[in-house]
Amino acid sequence: MSTCSSYVFGPYKIDPREVFYATPFSYAMVNLRPLLPGHVLVCPKRLVPRFTDLTADETSDLWLTAQKVGSKLETFHNASSLTLAIQDGPQAGQTVPHVHIHIMPRKGGDFEKNDEVYDALDEKEKELKQKLDLDIERVDRSIQEMADEASQYRSLFDC
Amino acid sequence: MSTCSSYVFGPYKIDPREVFYATPFSYAMVNLRPLLPGHVLVCPKRLVPRFTDLTADETSDLWLTAQKVGSKLETFHNASSLTLAIQDGPQAGQTVPHVHIHIMPRKGGDFEKNDEVYDALDEKEKELKQKLDLDIERVDRSIQEMADEASQYRSLFDC
Repeated sequence: MSTCSSYVFGPYKIDPREVFYATPFSYAMVNLRPLLPGHVLVCPKRLVPRFTDLTADETSDLWLTAQKVGSKLETFHNASSLTLAIQDGPQAGQTVPHVHIHIMPRKGGDFEKNDEVYDALDEKEKELKQKLDLDIERVDRSIQEMADEASQYRSLFDC
Repeated sequence: MSTCSSYVFGPYKIDPREVFYATPFSYAMVNLRPLLPGHVLVCPKRLVPRFTDLTADETSDLWLTAQKVGSKLETFHNASSLTLAIQDGPQAGQTVPHVHIHIMPRKGGDFEKNDEVYDALDEKEKELKQKLDLDIERVDRSIQEMADEASQYRSLFDC
């Protein structure tokens, strides 16, 4: 695995314990406040705000990573579908100016109406920024809890 | 351009006049009832229901196509962001069992709250299926209107 000692996410530094998979160009991390079990983010290692800023190699690697991560987590969480979305730019709801794919394993009835998952996604984008911006102690989920989840996921990619 | 005489979209046949860009593995088409100006779909040519069913070459090609199409249409529609989403599987809101990326150019204020775009997206998925299933005359948009839009977009990819 192409691990690093730290990862950037927009202007923020991500603890490598939160990262459970990495390739030469991309990394996958658990979420500070996941919307559903297995809600994770896949990002390019290089800090670029918009999807069009990625090179062809980065674009391919990012989505092959998302495909692999999504498939593993869907099975791990006994889900049957996936939501994959990029809010590409501020007018699309992006709050952290660094390309990131939201991946969410989905199950029947996880949200009363499917569209509610997106309402919640937008709320999470706002919270994500607030939480990271404020740089306050992460009361929502501890680094230990996130590291434990990441460690579980890491084992899915061993073989 | 790797055009075909017809394209499949799940169990449906798509008129090539609705298709404005194609590669060896992917095609981009205008929408029967776009949610916003420039709301288009990018699909693999091969009929596969789930994102994980795509080969690495298809996955890369699909997203490089989406990147190119999104960038061109964002500029064309004087937008400043893009929503890119796959509803991958029925529990994620997918109605036509053929992988498709929704691409929507976004502008400030196009929806009162950003999440409303997803509510609308889900409605469109339902309508899409109904419209295609019923095989009734397309009263919402004529093939001519769609062909005209596709023709405009096609010229964006000439150079």
